[in-house]
Amino acid sequence: MNRSNRSFKKIGVVGLGLIGGSLGLDLQELGYEVNGLVHKQDTALRAKELGLASTISTDEQILDNCDLVILALPLNELLNPQKRLLNALPKDAVVTDVGSVKAPILELWRNLHGRFIASHPMAGTSKAGVEAGVKNLFKGRPWVSTPDSTTDPEALKSIQSLVISLGSKWITTDAENHDAAVGLISHLPVVISAALIETVGREQNKSIYALASQLASSGFADTTRVGGGNPTLGTAMAASNAKAILRGLDLYRDCLDKFEKQIAEGNWDGLEEQLQKTQALRSKIVSG
Amino acid sequence: MNRSNRSFKKIGVVGLGLIGGSLGLDLQELGYEVNGLVHKQDTALRAKELGLASTISTDEQILDNCDLVILALPLNELLNPQKRLLNALPKDAVVTDVGSVKAPILELWRNLHGRFIASHPMAGTSKAGVEAGVKNLFKGRPWVSTPDSTTDPEALKSIQSLVISLGSKWITTDAENHDAAVGLISHLPVVISAALIETVGREQNKSIYALASQLASSGFADTTRVGGGNPTLGTAMAASNAKAILRGLDLYRDCLDKFEKQIAEGNWDGLEEQLQKTQALRSKIVSG
Repeated sequence: MNRSNRSFKKIGVVGLGLIGGSLGLDLQELGYEVNGLVHKQDTALRAKELGLASTISTDEQILDNCDLVILALPLNELLNPQKRLLNALPKDAVVTDVGSVKAPILELWRNLHGRFIASHPMAGTSKAGVEAGVKNLFKGRPWVSTPDSTTDPEALKSIQSLVISLGSKWITTDAENHDAAVGLISHLPVVISAALIETVGREQNKSIYALASQLASSGFADTTRVGGGNPTLGTAMAASNAKAILRGLDLYRDCLDKFEKQIAEGNWDGLEEQLQKTQALRSKIVSG
Repeated sequence: MNRSNRSFKKIGVVGLGLIGGSLGLDLQELGYEVNGLVHKQDTALRAKELGLASTISTDEQILDNCDLVILALPLNELLNPQKRLLNALPKDAVVTDVGSVKAPILELWRNLHGRFIASHPMAGTSKAGVEAGVKNLFKGRPWVSTPDSTTDPEALKSIQSLVISLGSKWITTDAENHDAAVGLISHLPVVISAALIETVGREQNKSIYALASQLASSGFADTTRVGGGNPTLGTAMAASNAKAILRGLDLYRDCLDKFEKQIAEGNWDGLEEQLQKTQALRSKIVSG
């Protein structure tokens, strides 16, 4: 990518955790000057050691003269932004976020900043915090934006070309459909998975519980990974996408009932047919 | 391990899939002569190319003179063994299995062979079939045996020392507790995970479904991995451990209700506290 193609001169990244840190690494690799803003002095020092941005500070002034600011903050901070941060955002800069729920963020931020673009990458690892940033996290992954009638089309286009230069697949949709979709494939799994962990914890027979802990293998670890994730993030997801999750839980309960009935009735042919269908369906969904 | 410590001279492995093939590789590495029995000529040829056993055949006679036979067969074949196989098992050999449900296997096999040891390794990958065998699959993993009053203590001891030489952690428990425990951490997750896949499949809104498929990320892939596994194996697990799974589903539904109530009532403090507990609990269980 040569300098003339670049949409931005200086990019501010607010938060240098998994998403912000990974962005900082990739954007510098693309030749951008990246200014990182973090909460704590400790984090700033560590982020400097790791080279997550060109310049790093705990002072909001670092966003001065940035023509793009990426808010790589947790959902709850995006939905309750600090006044100091709002005051520091340059009026002419394009501003985007990385929150996994879009309708409430768009509703709030379109009134907070004239060039706000609601967007987020579908990418992650099980890590979090300043140590979590990795190169090429976004390569080949979807990056969704949810513009509405108030969205500045030029700002949207500039984010699109930046995201494509990161190697992501650009997707545009409306915020409600987006939230319903991630409710199903990203937020509902957190609840389903957390409930499985609690089920094992509720086992009253001590020998069975001890044995279950000893024997838990990769299957249990995989199925419960998202349910054992960051509690604050899980709560923020649920709080900002409750309708979609509750709708998903209703559907889910029906599916669970069907499996339970087949097992209770010993309908093994029916169960095997059902499992064949879910196997095929998963391949289709996961290969995306 | 030197030759004098070895409990067995010639080991028969029936089935050279993930477990049988991996056993074949490790046992040869330990210096054992391994005779592999498979169903099909094609499989035998491929297993030979991959070096999964010292000698490989589709003829049951290959088990002659084996002093240990490991039945590395799927659950449904273990519970409905072929007469030809039964006739080919040397009377004096120790015989063990690798089935993940122990009570029905023990009940059947203790009447089929005088030196049968019900056992199984808690190890796996997402692969299956003759290509799936890997070295060191069992290292550091639990290997459970479920002896009862009819079990030959010498035969049990010989399996124990073999399993330890493979690097596994030897665990002895009774078959009922074992089945209840794996019901919770291994079989219940299959149902929970499969129901999640079906939930996405039932989404009637086509744009939401299309978007969900596009956006499905590592979280969805992990949570649904076991639900998208081998349908025949899943059905055999459910059929042979139905009581434990149904009991687990009852407990699970209560946990799900609790999460749903917190979300429906907007009890975010309660939800976050709950997610903190499940996060801590998962670490304890998964670290074993």
